[in-house]
Amino acid sequence: MSAVEELIRKANVLTEALPYIRAFFDKTVVIKYGGAAMENDALKASFAKDVTLLRFIGLRPVIVHGGGPQIGELLGRLGKKTEFVDGVRVTDQETMEVVEMVLGGQINGEIVSLIGESGGQAIGLTGKDAGGFLRVTRLLGAGGRDLGRVGAPDRVDVSLIRTLTKDGFIPVIAPIGVDAEGNTHNVNADTAAGAIAEALAAEKLILLTDVEGVLDDGKKLIHQMTEGEVRRAIHSGTVKGGMIPKLECAVHAMERGVTAAHIIDGRLPHALLLEIFTDVGVGTKLVRAKV
Amino acid sequence: MSAVEELIRKANVLTEALPYIRAFFDKTVVIKYGGAAMENDALKASFAKDVTLLRFIGLRPVIVHGGGPQIGELLGRLGKKTEFVDGVRVTDQETMEVVEMVLGGQINGEIVSLIGESGGQAIGLTGKDAGGFLRVTRLLGAGGRDLGRVGAPDRVDVSLIRTLTKDGFIPVIAPIGVDAEGNTHNVNADTAAGAIAEALAAEKLILLTDVEGVLDDGKKLIHQMTEGEVRRAIHSGTVKGGMIPKLECAVHAMERGVTAAHIIDGRLPHALLLEIFTDVGVGTKLVRAKV
Amino acid sequence: MSAVEELIRKANVLTEALPYIRAFFDKTVVIKYGGAAMENDALKASFAKDVTLLRFIGLRPVIVHGGGPQIGELLGRLGKKTEFVDGVRVTDQETMEVVEMVLGGQINGEIVSLIGESGGQAIGLTGKDAGGFLRVTRLLGAGGRDLGRVGAPDRVDVSLIRTLTKDGFIPVIAPIGVDAEGNTHNVNADTAAGAIAEALAAEKLILLTDVEGVLDDGKKLIHQMTEGEVRRAIHSGTVKGGMIPKLECAVHAMERGVTAAHIIDGRLPHALLLEIFTDVGVGTKLVRAKV
Amino acid sequence: MSAVEELIRKANVLTEALPYIRAFFDKTVVIKYGGAAMENDALKASFAKDVTLLRFIGLRPVIVHGGGPQIGELLGRLGKKTEFVDGVRVTDQETMEVVEMVLGGQINGEIVSLIGESGGQAIGLTGKDAGGFLRVTRLLGAGGRDLGRVGAPDRVDVSLIRTLTKDGFIPVIAPIGVDAEGNTHNVNADTAAGAIAEALAAEKLILLTDVEGVLDDGKKLIHQMTEGEVRRAIHSGTVKGGMIPKLECAVHAMERGVTAAHIIDGRLPHALLLEIFTDVGVGTKLVRAKV
Amino acid sequence: MSAVEELIRKANVLTEALPYIRAFFDKTVVIKYGGAAMENDALKASFAKDVTLLRFIGLRPVIVHGGGPQIGELLGRLGKKTEFVDGVRVTDQETMEVVEMVLGGQINGEIVSLIGESGGQAIGLTGKDAGGFLRVTRLLGAGGRDLGRVGAPDRVDVSLIRTLTKDGFIPVIAPIGVDAEGNTHNVNADTAAGAIAEALAAEKLILLTDVEGVLDDGKKLIHQMTEGEVRRAIHSGTVKGGMIPKLECAVHAMERGVTAAHIIDGRLPHALLLEIFTDVGVGTKLVRAKV
Amino acid sequence: MSAVEELIRKANVLTEALPYIRAFFDKTVVIKYGGAAMENDALKASFAKDVTLLRFIGLRPVIVHGGGPQIGELLGRLGKKTEFVDGVRVTDQETMEVVEMVLGGQINGEIVSLIGESGGQAIGLTGKDAGGFLRVTRLLGAGGRDLGRVGAPDRVDVSLIRTLTKDGFIPVIAPIGVDAEGNTHNVNADTAAGAIAEALAAEKLILLTDVEGVLDDGKKLIHQMTEGEVRRAIHSGTVKGGMIPKLECAVHAMERGVTAAHIIDGRLPHALLLEIFTDVGVGTKLVRAKV
Repeated sequence: MSAVEELIRKANVLTEALPYIRAFFDKTVVIKYGGAAMENDALKASFAKDVTLLRFIGLRPVIVHGGGPQIGELLGRLGKKTEFVDGVRVTDQETMEVVEMVLGGQINGEIVSLIGESGGQAIGLTGKDAGGFLRVTRLLGAGGRDLGRVGAPDRVDVSLIRTLTKDGFIPVIAPIGVDAEGNTHNVNADTAAGAIAEALAAEKLILLTDVEGVLDDGKKLIHQMTEGEVRRAIHSGTVKGGMIPKLECAVHAMERGVTAAHIIDGRLPHALLLEIFTDVGVGTKLVRAKV
Repeated sequence: MSAVEELIRKANVLTEALPYIRAFFDKTVVIKYGGAAMENDALKASFAKDVTLLRFIGLRPVIVHGGGPQIGELLGRLGKKTEFVDGVRVTDQETMEVVEMVLGGQINGEIVSLIGESGGQAIGLTGKDAGGFLRVTRLLGAGGRDLGRVGAPDRVDVSLIRTLTKDGFIPVIAPIGVDAEGNTHNVNADTAAGAIAEALAAEKLILLTDVEGVLDDGKKLIHQMTEGEVRRAIHSGTVKGGMIPKLECAVHAMERGVTAAHIIDGRLPHALLLEIFTDVGVGTKLVRAKV
Repeated sequence: MSAVEELIRKANVLTEALPYIRAFFDKTVVIKYGGAAMENDALKASFAKDVTLLRFIGLRPVIVHGGGPQIGELLGRLGKKTEFVDGVRVTDQETMEVVEMVLGGQINGEIVSLIGESGGQAIGLTGKDAGGFLRVTRLLGAGGRDLGRVGAPDRVDVSLIRTLTKDGFIPVIAPIGVDAEGNTHNVNADTAAGAIAEALAAEKLILLTDVEGVLDDGKKLIHQMTEGEVRRAIHSGTVKGGMIPKLECAVHAMERGVTAAHIIDGRLPHALLLEIFTDVGVGTKLVRAKV
Repeated sequence: MSAVEELIRKANVLTEALPYIRAFFDKTVVIKYGGAAMENDALKASFAKDVTLLRFIGLRPVIVHGGGPQIGELLGRLGKKTEFVDGVRVTDQETMEVVEMVLGGQINGEIVSLIGESGGQAIGLTGKDAGGFLRVTRLLGAGGRDLGRVGAPDRVDVSLIRTLTKDGFIPVIAPIGVDAEGNTHNVNADTAAGAIAEALAAEKLILLTDVEGVLDDGKKLIHQMTEGEVRRAIHSGTVKGGMIPKLECAVHAMERGVTAAHIIDGRLPHALLLEIFTDVGVGTKLVRAKV
Repeated sequence: MSAVEELIRKANVLTEALPYIRAFFDKTVVIKYGGAAMENDALKASFAKDVTLLRFIGLRPVIVHGGGPQIGELLGRLGKKTEFVDGVRVTDQETMEVVEMVLGGQINGEIVSLIGESGGQAIGLTGKDAGGFLRVTRLLGAGGRDLGRVGAPDRVDVSLIRTLTKDGFIPVIAPIGVDAEGNTHNVNADTAAGAIAEALAAEKLILLTDVEGVLDDGKKLIHQMTEGEVRRAIHSGTVKGGMIPKLECAVHAMERGVTAAHIIDGRLPHALLLEIFTDVGVGTKLVRAKV
Repeated sequence: MSAVEELIRKANVLTEALPYIRAFFDKTVVIKYGGAAMENDALKASFAKDVTLLRFIGLRPVIVHGGGPQIGELLGRLGKKTEFVDGVRVTDQETMEVVEMVLGGQINGEIVSLIGESGGQAIGLTGKDAGGFLRVTRLLGAGGRDLGRVGAPDRVDVSLIRTLTKDGFIPVIAPIGVDAEGNTHNVNADTAAGAIAEALAAEKLILLTDVEGVLDDGKKLIHQMTEGEVRRAIHSGTVKGGMIPKLECAVHAMERGVTAAHIIDGRLPHALLLEIFTDVGVGTKLVRAKV
């Protein structure tokens, strides 16, 4: 293939993306960022480029990130032990301070920098900003067990996020919320992303995971599911473990106005672009059942 | 190569375009459209897609088109003969009416439709619109010879074009101008494109041609030239024939504020994207000499 | 009468218009332009002045024009015959191309120029512009007979027209529509004007005709009619022939939000001003029955 | 002449005004209102209609009025005597209060009401509004004689006037100014109008008077004068008495950015329209000498 | 107390006001100004400062003033007698002219000046401005008795007031209204303030009086009342005389959208600030009953 | 003093602030926050209230904070030692990560929360946000000594800060900058505040310190100094130690467009309000020499 033919082939790729670019022009996409895509350097760079590209071709990306391993690492260095209850980190005041430093000071800043290197203008935020835009109520464990500073989203004031995305900025949000008394709480990143997507009436909620997507009983990827199919898959045991809360979070957001939710494989380079700009995508897409 | 690898490769193509997308965000590009790219169906479709893509990724494309062959064809069907003087069609009143019907009614509408099919919103214009936005003075042939209704651009009021491109519309302009008495005139499309680019202080003026670009004495494509090099190439005879007025038009526009001019090979699919989104491009790029 | 008295009398005419100017300030008026008013030079000039005056005293005029005779003339010169079925020109592909050249390239441009000479800023449009703002479905003749490229308005996207009139431009629209597959169609100009007026929720739809207006059984002009009276007049046979579709078009638009419709005598100089700025007007005004 | 011919003649009058309407679109015109035009009921009504018409056809009229006779009348009823020095009313504190009541409470309100009856939206103002938008310094009589609360315009803050005219309101201004200590002062209405026109960089300053205009030595009206001709006419004694300060005020405003000044005969109905919408006008127009 | 301690104490006062400043940010407050606060020089100055402060800390104050004593005084000087019927001044044409001069020319201007001295930008208005923004119907006395030019508010067009307050101007309104025929009428200032507050959907209507507020049977100030309590207090005779129409006016406004009404003691310096910026206030606050 | 007198006295305090409120309306004030005011709980609360009050009365506060002690504490807990050279912390990669976590994650968030509790809407930022709005070049120690990740401000892009303050948000900025390669650097907080104030052309730069202000040779507070006096005081040795860089930073900002700089005693409650809203202030004010 000659150099010119190679170029033309590349240009064809660009114009193939046109229908997707048109369809999602000016639409808001909330992305839960975490797992391998946040650890591997090549994947980090590819993610940052994808997000910046989305913004320049007219979408409004909003990032919500996690950071469990990094929190664990700093707690370890400080000799502070953590207990987990039902997969939730029991978070005392001192742990919460570490959470804030890691999520709000370290990871948040790193993502902002990566996007900046790709030419995007990201703004790091936590739910404490703007008078506490992410309001939470304290979450109790099974049997009313005290989990400390762990909160569930209650109310999201998205006016700041709207202002920023309208001006072309990319919000990068650490999932830290504030309760009615002004106390800081740790929030599950998937849940925070879902609540923010819902409050923004986002076009898409995309959860980056370290699995292929939702698998059927034969371990094959399910490309698309309706809300009803999701419920049946949970009920029948086809879906298990950590995928259940992710699916519940996605369905919850869709019931409150998000158009579609995607559970995608963050281990693939450009997973974000592949999911948004191709029909088949690289994960499981949840859609509303056609009536 | 697996399907996923193929997809990732495609996504890489998109992110490779990112630096160009960022660099030309919100910039105006005036494109002279004509020749093979306006005759071959596949090239026509690829051109329309390119233009639509440019608009959706944030540029402001403005099209100026020619139509000599189609004018000749209708004149022929009407049994009307035309004389050419120095390559310029002597245009009497009746011929001018045919020019208006062909450029303003047929070709203009066809381009608008093609862009519409790609999802873009084009608006067909002639220089008569908006109170005569393209003002001309009558052009005389060598020795003061009367060429009839043939005009040279005098003053361009680009407020309408600015309003349209700001709202995301793509102006498609037939090169018809109006003199001070309100008489309609035929204008060379390259010259009209140059004058419009100049009035818009465009980032780029791109002339689609049916040749590879500017060739050196060894018939090899010159990828980049400064204004001085252009003048020397004309003076030395390296450049000949129809390329001379194109280069003069391009240099003229650059002297009046256009950042760069491109003479590209419209016979290649996606010539427009290739020229804008690659470093080497597919033609000759005229740039200001570095001081 | 002294010169000063003459002047004062003229000034009185201006202030007599004040109540009408105030009443229609910032209101949209859609005018179907055709017939004698589009053929006689003096009437053409008077029409252009009227339209420009309307715009400068604060109204938003929108012109929709016909062009049957001119289409017939070019078809004749090209040796192309046309068949008419129930008064509708059967329009094959080749005829449609002629229609586009005549309406979109010749007449449209001429009206734009005339308004420009009066100091107005008109913009020539066809329904193909802006991604096909005038959507049509193919119209069949009686008994399902194929009429070729003849369409009935289906959906009008008036955002472009709104943008233009808000900025003081005067849209001049050729009645050419686009179907769902992107094919161009010829549309009856009255019908197109009605559909555009309806989509704009215009204050007035004014149809210029070559008759005095609607006449009663004694051949006297009816100055004002309600929708009910129109229906009765059609039913009783008081109204006949070509006036029937005009009245149906007008009533249809009024049922969908246009405040008033006027069928006026375009053979009078300044027919437009006379109808808008006097109580008695120069034609028949259709109004909603007072409840 | 038939009824229709009469109507067409009237429409011709409207379109004859078009070139003036276009020329003065969005331009500011400051009018000093006083004399017979403010006393005769028919003239008052015709003035109010003219001003309202000006606003609806796109100009921005600003009225500055006098009120000497009415002030004298109330002073008389209150048994308060006034002394005049060089034509200026010596204004003690108590007289100033009467001036404010008459200009700001009675006359101002009456003009606002008249314009309201014509359908215009006028706003009565004095120079005390908006924190004292008309700043004055105290004026001394010949030989430094104390004239009391009589001020000369010093600085005009036109932001309020601009806001109001932009929104379509018509400011009606009583010539009352405020000095640096906040004391209210009486200001000559011509002078106030000139200073306001200057601060607005108005297109026109129009002074309504009770004479035909400036007369030459043969008592014939001079239709147009340059600033140089005005100076020579004053110097030669052609112009005498009360006309001298009016001309000086007009020339002063023109030297500071007003395009043209008019001294017109307010005793004619529609004097304002006649002056603005005809070439010959009904008074003397001061223009810049062509260089 | 040291100088620094004194300063800190002052700063504490400022921050104590913060919750009120936040709560009323961008809210509209309509203030009926009259009585002692309009007569005593110190109170006048304190009122003007309060109003200016309100505007600078983000509220939108609107003043409506009375002027009975000053009207009486000028009528007296002019030897004109007035009859009062049920506390309402019978207002013939001549009296109405005096009312306009006093309210619109004298008092209005004085308040505007006082606010100007405090640094605020007030604009004096009467209900005649803006085409008659305060529309009234003629009020008849008991038994249909003719009271002359006395009107009751009918319809308030607050667009001018909104424009002015949005731009930071402070409207100062004389309670003069216009009937459908354009005749000027005297309006009770409390009633005018209530109607304006209602049309603005104001946060507060504050009536400055010369009493402590509403007193209970033991002559003690009632700090807060619901609408039901007001009605019972009127019915039981606890409230008597001039307080009854004030309370009825306040309740009427609250029933039509005003959030709270205050009847306060204008004899106290800074009564306005004290009422708005403290919980207990200096008068009686009418609130909606909690459901 | 009765309760009402006490209230009136408080209201007097509010109106005393009026001239300052007017003078600084819509002005930007950059505040370097640190020292005791950032450690003592009562001072922290008083600072947050002051900042919120400033915003609600119309100023645009921008906070830049330090955090040396807190950085030292976390480094200590992690067993990481730091070397200081000329008072600057030598900052290796690992230390820089701790700096980011403490400044960007802990302190920044705490200040944002405190302001949120006062009702203000703060947004935590670092110089990495918005594509790296605080650009730095690496700073070398005396003799070219490598200090690691320590930067000096080079270029500040204040568009994000302007957007935020225009919408009423309060930026809280951690002094972390980015070099041309995208590496994060520690920046002295005073210097960062100065550079940001300069780029904003701020009205005031206020440095909170733990001293009274600048003292003269007799240890008495100097209330006001010109730039020349500052230079002489440094030269003569009157000013010593840590005050020298603070004064140099302040003078530097004033030479580049900041109107005034203040070095104030952050140990006093409401130091900010006292300095802005009183003439004498609570520190040393640097002003331009009157020419």
